[in-house]
Amino acid sequence: MNMPSDLDISRSSPRRSLEEIAAQLGLAPHLLEPYGRDVAKVSLDALEEAGTENRAKYVLVSAITPTPLGEGKTTTTVGLGQALRHLGKTSAVTVRQPSMGPTFGIKGGAAGGGYSQVVPMEALNLHLTGDMHAVTAANNMLAAMVDNHLHKGNRLGLDPRRITWRRVTDVNDRDLRNIVTGLGGNDDGSPHQTGFDITAASEVMAVLALSTSLHDMRARLGRIVVGYTYDGGPVTAEQLGAAGAMTVIMREAIKPNLMQTVENTPVLVHAGPFGNIAHGNSSIVADRIASRCADYVVTEAGFGADMGAERFFNIKCRNSGLSPDAAVLVATVRALKAHSGRFRVVAGKDLPEEMLAENPDDVLAGAANLRKQIDNLRLHGVSPVVAVNAFPSDYASEHQAIRDIAEQAGARVAISTHFSDGGKGAVELAEAVAEAAEEPSRFELLYPDSADLRSKIETIATRVYGAEDVSYEPAAAKALKSYAENGFGSLPVCVAKTHLSLSSNPSLLGAPTGWTLPVRDVRASVGAGFVYPICGDIRTMPGLSSRPAAERIDIDDRGEVVGLS
Amino acid sequence: MNMPSDLDISRSSPRRSLEEIAAQLGLAPHLLEPYGRDVAKVSLDALEEAGTENRAKYVLVSAITPTPLGEGKTTTTVGLGQALRHLGKTSAVTVRQPSMGPTFGIKGGAAGGGYSQVVPMEALNLHLTGDMHAVTAANNMLAAMVDNHLHKGNRLGLDPRRITWRRVTDVNDRDLRNIVTGLGGNDDGSPHQTGFDITAASEVMAVLALSTSLHDMRARLGRIVVGYTYDGGPVTAEQLGAAGAMTVIMREAIKPNLMQTVENTPVLVHAGPFGNIAHGNSSIVADRIASRCADYVVTEAGFGADMGAERFFNIKCRNSGLSPDAAVLVATVRALKAHSGRFRVVAGKDLPEEMLAENPDDVLAGAANLRKQIDNLRLHGVSPVVAVNAFPSDYASEHQAIRDIAEQAGARVAISTHFSDGGKGAVELAEAVAEAAEEPSRFELLYPDSADLRSKIETIATRVYGAEDVSYEPAAAKALKSYAENGFGSLPVCVAKTHLSLSSNPSLLGAPTGWTLPVRDVRASVGAGFVYPICGDIRTMPGLSSRPAAERIDIDDRGEVVGLS
Repeated sequence: MNMPSDLDISRSSPRRSLEEIAAQLGLAPHLLEPYGRDVAKVSLDALEEAGTENRAKYVLVSAITPTPLGEGKTTTTVGLGQALRHLGKTSAVTVRQPSMGPTFGIKGGAAGGGYSQVVPMEALNLHLTGDMHAVTAANNMLAAMVDNHLHKGNRLGLDPRRITWRRVTDVNDRDLRNIVTGLGGNDDGSPHQTGFDITAASEVMAVLALSTSLHDMRARLGRIVVGYTYDGGPVTAEQLGAAGAMTVIMREAIKPNLMQTVENTPVLVHAGPFGNIAHGNSSIVADRIASRCADYVVTEAGFGADMGAERFFNIKCRNSGLSPDAAVLVATVRALKAHSGRFRVVAGKDLPEEMLAENPDDVLAGAANLRKQIDNLRLHGVSPVVAVNAFPSDYASEHQAIRDIAEQAGARVAISTHFSDGGKGAVELAEAVAEAAEEPSRFELLYPDSADLRSKIETIATRVYGAEDVSYEPAAAKALKSYAENGFGSLPVCVAKTHLSLSSNPSLLGAPTGWTLPVRDVRASVGAGFVYPICGDIRTMPGLSSRPAAERIDIDDRGEVVGLS
Repeated sequence: MNMPSDLDISRSSPRRSLEEIAAQLGLAPHLLEPYGRDVAKVSLDALEEAGTENRAKYVLVSAITPTPLGEGKTTTTVGLGQALRHLGKTSAVTVRQPSMGPTFGIKGGAAGGGYSQVVPMEALNLHLTGDMHAVTAANNMLAAMVDNHLHKGNRLGLDPRRITWRRVTDVNDRDLRNIVTGLGGNDDGSPHQTGFDITAASEVMAVLALSTSLHDMRARLGRIVVGYTYDGGPVTAEQLGAAGAMTVIMREAIKPNLMQTVENTPVLVHAGPFGNIAHGNSSIVADRIASRCADYVVTEAGFGADMGAERFFNIKCRNSGLSPDAAVLVATVRALKAHSGRFRVVAGKDLPEEMLAENPDDVLAGAANLRKQIDNLRLHGVSPVVAVNAFPSDYASEHQAIRDIAEQAGARVAISTHFSDGGKGAVELAEAVAEAAEEPSRFELLYPDSADLRSKIETIATRVYGAEDVSYEPAAAKALKSYAENGFGSLPVCVAKTHLSLSSNPSLLGAPTGWTLPVRDVRASVGAGFVYPICGDIRTMPGLSSRPAAERIDIDDRGEVVGLS
């Protein structure tokens, strides 16, 4: 099959005006603020004008534990949104804004792909409406105010050795991971060791994603802890007088961005918190608006169900009050074969030749991961639907193997060809999702706010990841104690571990048992509203490769973008 | 007189749709790309659709050497643009985009003021359409690609000690002036001493301002020199493969931003290059579009006429091919009194009490500066019009004193009350400008491209600044030699010196003579297309004050911005 490139599909798809797209959701033109021709911000007045009833069926798209190549969660999310319209339902897709850094790094864009993508991909992958830049600006103004506070007398007694706030940039820049600032002399601040993270990793981004309104965002920004005093007390953005100005910088960013798919399904793109040290879900504001306007809201959570879905349930839904009606688990032949432990899949490299041969037994050998992730959805009272994201190189016997595993586990299952066929390729999936969503909702949070932080970590580790036990390094134990003392104990937890295994060891495939989750350190995003235990090496600033994508990206003679994929 | 605040005036002024604003210039709606409700980008197709004739009278607004408080050049520019419409002419105002950092620092916003301002000031002073962020992103992606090149084998033989490219951020952050990056070990780059400038100081910003088209911008970005090889040869963004991606990042930024004044006069806001190490003028693209559409284009150049106007003529007009028809010199009673040398004016403090007393003799004692700046315009064959920017605290006798000085120097002169009266307060000024612009143009560049760099520097120093001589430190002499060898000798020069004196010593007021311009170093913005000798301490990254404006800026209960001034 010769598919046109994603960029060609994006360019050749007939687009509708954003007014028409909004009209599908009953959103009137005065609620739209156009940003160029292809994106519009949606006024938060939409929340009031759309009424207070969350009438939509709320569907999460998650996945089994992915290979380093990814298993097509975004394309499935878009394809499902498109397919629901083939069933005569209105639907809205809500997704994260991709980070710009990786667009020029190894990864290329992140707009879905094939005939299930958000268009135009250039707008989505480049600045969009500037929300990412607003997060960068707000984050870095706070950093400047922290250092300025020290420079101008340190009224609050902030301990310079205990500043936790870092700067951010939306560029893959490894040389900024560890830096010393404030060199140069008296007028130029004072030397500190610090660093930059990629913007998506900023707590400000997590605040944007978890805020329920402009004023809620203002309050959360104020609660951000930038460091600790000599006495060990937290110092907040509010105390530094920074939270108001940060809110003003973010005043437009709080409005979701309306786009469309290649089939003109409405898409709300909003916020892009990192999946490893933050919860990796798109915004609550977008989901709330969409839930009042559409028959179905289809949203996506980063990584596998042990991470993205768990955080969707226990962090995002805990904050939003919205309750999911069904959850999709994207599975691929290649990922199940990888979980057999018989092959080695490496990012940026072709799959091993043997993996491409027809062999349903290899698929069945990877079943444990799919079964465990199905259980992880059920654990929260949510009906699972397994979506087989079909590749042209797959064999029917291999699809059947996945179907068998899912059905034996009592889950609905559908084969989906949305990548090459668009919405009509996902109609079987849409039907299964609609059925699942009709079941009475039995959604429940995994743990109450009142549980202590250790018990929250242990509940996730043992019940979701399948760990036998949790161990804490001294730094982690100390941090947990101080968080409890500082009143952060009622926050939910967001475990930072590898997404390539249910365990904290990326080489353990399938559904490992008998292992211990090692908590190396624990950090707190008090403004966003979660505590995150660090289990393993977590990278918050990517680097560029030997031949970064940037080298191929350019304009052509007519000024059109080339090389973006 | 009780004037409402700038923010209140901005909010209460009746706004017209941007389609109506554009229609004043004959720009059709399809040429506009709305960004929110208050700003629209103008497609570069406007250049073709408006025809090729530069029919507008092209008017520069400059000033005498200002006090640290500034003399109201932006308000005069806006007021004059408004007043020309009172004379039945169509006019377009073209100005720079203010830097966001200082908005939260000491300065507050920069949108003009009173009844001569660009509205809405929140949009202008905050993100506008994201051009500033695009410059930041392009600049910093190039920085990451420079360091990545070293990390991945240094194919080009770039000397790590001779990297001149720095990173930028649009935040006043003194602790980033001097930093060490690349700490942390093998995977995290390699240690360098470097730093951040404010975004306005980026060469990318100067490129944006001086480009004549998207493809010209692509070519200039490619010519940016990031450092030198071990052999002393320049290494460019093109050689690093970064220029295409930078252009893609800047693809929307090259389009000017249409706004309006409180009296609904069209304003093109575009690019904001720093006035000290760059040329401090708004974009060529905006002026070109406006020149084909309006009867008058009124634009502004940073600092006094020795700096802003000189660079407008010899850098901006040299690149654009546009020829100015008149130039306004903004003068104030306080600035002339300051040039008497009898008072001391300090930024952020009230004027000395004695300066506010009626005393035309103090004004006359400062005449030399005004006379010299009048000469500086005449030197380029441009008719000068002195605009007295009237303050409520001024006395008529003091205005008369300025009138006398100007008339004795053979210049047209007008008293202007645009701040409190809007366009109708600047009608006298508009009439004088219209008269001056009717004179046949005798515009000429001060030096030819072919002159060598030393002779260009010496021509500006002696003829414009009134220096007796120029001295070169060894580093400067060496740099000039290497630039000539590397083929940069035909570029114009942009002298980086204090704007608070015609000389390089900020404490020398009036029109100092008998002094020597000390050139400490010389740098090159090869992509933007100028060489800049450094004469004195030039700061490229501001700091925050003890009580930064950010502490006062917030949202109110209704979500409106408060504290922005």
